[in-house]
Amino acid sequence: MATSAFQRLPGFRDFPPEELALRSHIQEAWRRVSRRYGFQEYDGPPLEPLELYVEKSGAEIVGQLYNFTDKGEREVALRPEMTPSLARILGDRSRGMSKPIRWFSTPQLFRYERQQRGRLREHFQWNVDIVGEEDVAADAEVLAVAIDGLRELGLGPDDFRARVSDRRLLREVLLAVGVEEERLPTAFGIIDKLERMPRDKARATLLKDAKLGSAETDGLLELLDSAGLDAVRARFGDRGAVAAELARLAQYLGALEAMGLGAFVQFDLRIVRGLAYYTGIVFELFDRKGALRAICGGGRYDRLLELVGGEPLPAVGFGMGDVVLGELLAERGLLPAYERALDYFVVAVSPEQRAQALRIAHTLRDRGSSVAYALKAELGVTKQLKAADREGAKEVLIVGPDELARGCVVAKNMESGGEREIALSELT
Amino acid sequence: MATSAFQRLPGFRDFPPEELALRSHIQEAWRRVSRRYGFQEYDGPPLEPLELYVEKSGAEIVGQLYNFTDKGEREVALRPEMTPSLARILGDRSRGMSKPIRWFSTPQLFRYERQQRGRLREHFQWNVDIVGEEDVAADAEVLAVAIDGLRELGLGPDDFRARVSDRRLLREVLLAVGVEEERLPTAFGIIDKLERMPRDKARATLLKDAKLGSAETDGLLELLDSAGLDAVRARFGDRGAVAAELARLAQYLGALEAMGLGAFVQFDLRIVRGLAYYTGIVFELFDRKGALRAICGGGRYDRLLELVGGEPLPAVGFGMGDVVLGELLAERGLLPAYERALDYFVVAVSPEQRAQALRIAHTLRDRGSSVAYALKAELGVTKQLKAADREGAKEVLIVGPDELARGCVVAKNMESGGEREIALSELT
Repeated sequence: MATSAFQRLPGFRDFPPEELALRSHIQEAWRRVSRRYGFQEYDGPPLEPLELYVEKSGAEIVGQLYNFTDKGEREVALRPEMTPSLARILGDRSRGMSKPIRWFSTPQLFRYERQQRGRLREHFQWNVDIVGEEDVAADAEVLAVAIDGLRELGLGPDDFRARVSDRRLLREVLLAVGVEEERLPTAFGIIDKLERMPRDKARATLLKDAKLGSAETDGLLELLDSAGLDAVRARFGDRGAVAAELARLAQYLGALEAMGLGAFVQFDLRIVRGLAYYTGIVFELFDRKGALRAICGGGRYDRLLELVGGEPLPAVGFGMGDVVLGELLAERGLLPAYERALDYFVVAVSPEQRAQALRIAHTLRDRGSSVAYALKAELGVTKQLKAADREGAKEVLIVGPDELARGCVVAKNMESGGEREIALSELT
Repeated sequence: MATSAFQRLPGFRDFPPEELALRSHIQEAWRRVSRRYGFQEYDGPPLEPLELYVEKSGAEIVGQLYNFTDKGEREVALRPEMTPSLARILGDRSRGMSKPIRWFSTPQLFRYERQQRGRLREHFQWNVDIVGEEDVAADAEVLAVAIDGLRELGLGPDDFRARVSDRRLLREVLLAVGVEEERLPTAFGIIDKLERMPRDKARATLLKDAKLGSAETDGLLELLDSAGLDAVRARFGDRGAVAAELARLAQYLGALEAMGLGAFVQFDLRIVRGLAYYTGIVFELFDRKGALRAICGGGRYDRLLELVGGEPLPAVGFGMGDVVLGELLAERGLLPAYERALDYFVVAVSPEQRAQALRIAHTLRDRGSSVAYALKAELGVTKQLKAADREGAKEVLIVGPDELARGCVVAKNMESGGEREIALSELT
């Protein structure tokens, strides 16, 4: 088979109808759930000033971007994430808006990643953010949206789990264990990588870089391994700063429990989510088999809007991509089969009925039905019926000389084969 | 008012919720109409190999593109139009597909245009194409889609008009007038610019560049000015080549008439649509006041797929942008007012009812209703009611100690003020 002289760029996807239907299946579920939670949809430009990303993530981000100099000598980049655009947009208008602001978006994002099997350079990402509310209820609400987004697509507690932590709690625990204030970023960095590190190496790194004693390191590792808040409470619950953080987390978990989502949520002190940016509760959603990368990540980021020059506003949100999620849905057999569907296919028995067939088709379309007919005028009835079948028509309307003489058309149900007559007066 | 330290790029739009709602209003109308006509939605990457556009439009297109060299040394460009991507995608797969192929898309497109008032560097464009059908019925079907797209948004025959022509007819008319074969592209170019040119200049250019005689030029200009096919038929209808083209156009106009769309369509031999690319019937949609640029343009392009290396397939389609259309809708008062809407706002009278309120909210969300509540736990009832009003809640559900003791909540209609009790058992 000859192929086109032009290939699409590596890491990009085409969306022919059957692929677009899957993308819409996911995006429409995201939209429905967002609206149920009272979120409003927004969007920004796919191209932004490069400095917007450098300001948030540092100069090292540039190596992963599609960036270039435009014809007006501006340094620009295809958006690698949505939050900087959100912060920029709100920076200009949040002061006039009532709080909290509940916004969502489903933008396409771009990263120049090294080519790897299954790694793409673009994806669609559901972004959900509450801006202007520091109450832990906002954190719970945002995680509930993420969980319900997956539930809406047919996934249940056997399929995925949200692992949650709080960077403020981790900080207090680390201080309690004996990590010095200036070693905290180092310790955060080690814990962030803990699950991808052999235990020996984790231990050695904590001893050397976080300057912890041997017993303290073992105690910390044990605590990080234990699920649930109880172990933390048992060891450090008498320290005021830890107790305050535990109380907030308990309120957070209680809210999710009240919403009936407790089965999806699991406390895990090892969830850190990178080094900068997040300031409080953080979470990631994983498939329970653990075979895939995280489906979703988010948390509280109370200083970002200020950073890009806007009003200082607390914020919490998440991003969920369509690629890993699509893999999970495919694996669970939860992707819908693609079917063409049409309400009517109008068949003109001979070219003399053509004008009448067009009239009927357009009348039905004006009423909101989906209608097609054979464009080639000289096509025989058998071929027209085959085309109707191929396009998934529910009913075929046969417009022939005998029927027209009787003032009607024959409607044939393509599934049952049953026929009925419809008066022309109803169709024009 | 302080503004963000970062500005969006010139020529790009942000879409805060009220703007996104207008964009969705237009795009959803486009989708509904496409589906009524049995078209399937597709999409391609916003970034493509630069050569894809150079191949179709020549090297001079590069000056109008957002193009750059990516980190893998590939010459790439943000898509300025959708048809090359369509041709590329079909080039790989059309051989296995039943014809005709009816596809539509609503991509965002990008051009580095010189900054002018009201000229943007991005827009969303409805693309509708029928590929693999040379019958003139496909041309009529595609124009009907474009017309119905505008009708769906509330525009009628007083608001806009489709001006149609056929480049094959124009060719035969020019040959009949006496233009030599090798002067045809020049003559097409002059006629394409006719409406933006003083009459003297048009006349002089036709005399000089198209090498027409004085009487022939006057005759041609008179013909171009006359609306309707009759003038052409009267003058050249006895020439076989012209008559064949007139017959085809009559069939085209007859099909649109049968669909009840005749009032929207006007023959106009001056519609050429550029120099290359199109091969047959061409059309443009204009507002009837003539104050705006064309709303939509399209036509038959039977050689493009072959050009990018695919199967030789006839094709016909159009592109309609959201910017000019949005201006026309705004001018006619046809843009919907933006209103926030929510089915329920749940009010907890005191923090003790919080968990119950969350339970109720989530139950209603699970049933598909849109629900919000105040995230700040200590907010008084009056402030919660204000928030409900701000978010456009239809009903407020009041969850208080007395109500819960009676096993119910009070539902207050925000418009009528009427109240009713709902049993808790119905809400959890």
